[in-house]
Amino acid sequence: MRDVAVIGIGMNKWGEVWEKSISDLIAESALLALDDAGLDKVDAMYIGCMSSGLFTDQEHLGSIGPDYAGICPTPGTRVESACASGGAAIRSGFLHVASGASDIVMVVGVEKMTDVDGAKATFALATAADQEYEVFHGVTFPGLYAMMANHHMNKYCTTRDQLAQVAVKNHKNGKLNPLAQFQMDVTLDQVKNAVMVSDPLTILDCSPITDGAAAVILCPADKAKSISKKRVVKVKGSGHASDTIQLAQRKDLSYLKSTEIAAKKALEMAGRKIGDINFAEVHDCFTIAEIMVVEALGAVEVGKGGPATMDGVTAVDGKFPVNASGGLKSKGHPVGATGVAQIVELVKQIRGTAEKGRQVKNANIGLAQNMGGSGASSVVHILEGE
Amino acid sequence: MRDVAVIGIGMNKWGEVWEKSISDLIAESALLALDDAGLDKVDAMYIGCMSSGLFTDQEHLGSIGPDYAGICPTPGTRVESACASGGAAIRSGFLHVASGASDIVMVVGVEKMTDVDGAKATFALATAADQEYEVFHGVTFPGLYAMMANHHMNKYCTTRDQLAQVAVKNHKNGKLNPLAQFQMDVTLDQVKNAVMVSDPLTILDCSPITDGAAAVILCPADKAKSISKKRVVKVKGSGHASDTIQLAQRKDLSYLKSTEIAAKKALEMAGRKIGDINFAEVHDCFTIAEIMVVEALGAVEVGKGGPATMDGVTAVDGKFPVNASGGLKSKGHPVGATGVAQIVELVKQIRGTAEKGRQVKNANIGLAQNMGGSGASSVVHILEGE
Repeated sequence: MRDVAVIGIGMNKWGEVWEKSISDLIAESALLALDDAGLDKVDAMYIGCMSSGLFTDQEHLGSIGPDYAGICPTPGTRVESACASGGAAIRSGFLHVASGASDIVMVVGVEKMTDVDGAKATFALATAADQEYEVFHGVTFPGLYAMMANHHMNKYCTTRDQLAQVAVKNHKNGKLNPLAQFQMDVTLDQVKNAVMVSDPLTILDCSPITDGAAAVILCPADKAKSISKKRVVKVKGSGHASDTIQLAQRKDLSYLKSTEIAAKKALEMAGRKIGDINFAEVHDCFTIAEIMVVEALGAVEVGKGGPATMDGVTAVDGKFPVNASGGLKSKGHPVGATGVAQIVELVKQIRGTAEKGRQVKNANIGLAQNMGGSGASSVVHILEGE
Repeated sequence: MRDVAVIGIGMNKWGEVWEKSISDLIAESALLALDDAGLDKVDAMYIGCMSSGLFTDQEHLGSIGPDYAGICPTPGTRVESACASGGAAIRSGFLHVASGASDIVMVVGVEKMTDVDGAKATFALATAADQEYEVFHGVTFPGLYAMMANHHMNKYCTTRDQLAQVAVKNHKNGKLNPLAQFQMDVTLDQVKNAVMVSDPLTILDCSPITDGAAAVILCPADKAKSISKKRVVKVKGSGHASDTIQLAQRKDLSYLKSTEIAAKKALEMAGRKIGDINFAEVHDCFTIAEIMVVEALGAVEVGKGGPATMDGVTAVDGKFPVNASGGLKSKGHPVGATGVAQIVELVKQIRGTAEKGRQVKNANIGLAQNMGGSGASSVVHILEGE
């Protein structure tokens, strides 16, 4: 396998983007990444997207991508793994370059979610769960994660305040990120007293509905310096694992086994231990998710994710900074774009170009964890500056 | 890049499969392929599927695949490129093994299309065209291919009988394929006098709505003999290209540029010329498509696809046998499964295990061409027996 590096990143302002189509969002982020890399074309393109069919009546993004970016006949391939679509697309692009089949490969992540009403968006997102054994019975994702939260609270005495602190921390970071959907602080009381969605999760424990895209450009590591003048950031590890799609079939409702396995694979490939990681972007689709993820990664003891958050371990200036970008919670969660935006953030941090107040000190080795469904698929990448 | 071989194939009976879900279809074909290879697990899985969201309310097939096949935590990734989803998934699996990241990779193609009514199926398929510039104005795929047919007929004097002959030939082959959706002959008169869909294409010029799945297992070529006792079939070439998604933006309405480019790439990788190919499976979603594809591949002169078909060049015993399986026309077209089933057929033919009457003589080098939309994406693979 060839070593792979990131030589370009691009991301548009996330939010409710009424004036642009999904095709426009893809093209915009692609052109930003080309500009960052100083290139005008690539050899292949991957597009991570969960459900452009249900959200925008548009499949065939493997064709839309190159066409709207103006680079036909460059081949394009859409990759889907629910909310881990972006991470899975990054992995596909990584394997493509590593194989030697092409040199310059772009990965775009995208989701245009606000073209449908809230009920249809909730339904579209629920297609990431088992349609026949979960959704048919009426459960959607806030309900699934609420069950995970209740299990975690019962088993480990995780408190309501600890859950809420995840939102408080991530909004504090996202406030400083000009591309984030929400640039505002929230307080513990605001989170706890917000509209209840699924007990114990209020609306402020949930990531929002977002339109957005992000793009990265990969190339063989030994060619990176000749293409880009920016700091070379290598993709040192990539891991991917699955778990049962049905939450009910797991041995432990509040432990993310697929994240544990994906992280172990990525760390092994990178020749690193979790203690070597300087900072992480993780999949906080709900506040409880971030707590479960840091535990599954091995960054904190299982059951201690809540107290660790409260104690500032995962703050920007903490021992293991998590979601300095604002995370899904504040930056927004256009599902297919999220995993690619995590890599954009890792590169920004490692280049030292994140905004003041949310730049992690000595950010050299970063980890990105992206997951689909209630953790039925997880993708972990480790990036390191040269 | 490592050389890659196919060591297992599986395909279920295609048709209107009311008694099975999309998850069942994936698992069934996966288990058939594992059985054919003599394996009980793989290192990674790819699932080619166009629109499980719109057809079955189920996304996240990268999780459904490993889970329903009973091989969690094996990672799964869904790949989509409209009707070329299967071919794109094969290419992803090929690149994965070629990269050295994993040894045994399964690729499943699937579509469950009959859970929705005809109008919704037509709408779901139309999401492979440009939603804003084509579908919004009322055109769906029979209309797009009818325009291509009329252009070809006007430019090259292609006749109605020549179009119909594609259906006659492919049904003759499919009649002998026990897994095909339709095992029946059709005559030129039946095709021409069938219900008109979009002039000049009647219902018998169109591939059907189908439920089905197919699976192949790939491994490094140098390990194939130690795993399987069957004839080793290598993936010698893989090519992928895009074109504008909108038909109206092409220079030539009836020439498939993306197929030409993908074929050139695949032939170059394989170190072959089109004259070396013994037989092909191509994307005859409509009768006119097969004629345009054999021209774009360079197997017949541009404009001569119609007469060549009428003269038997593409018959099982012809100079360039095309769709000995029955093609999409008779075997069926569960869109995401089609490209994978083409590889299943190539392996069957090269192993010499196709049914009597449709087995191509001296079938050693085969080509598979799979395309999305009106040719906005094309994937070509070349397989060769050792």
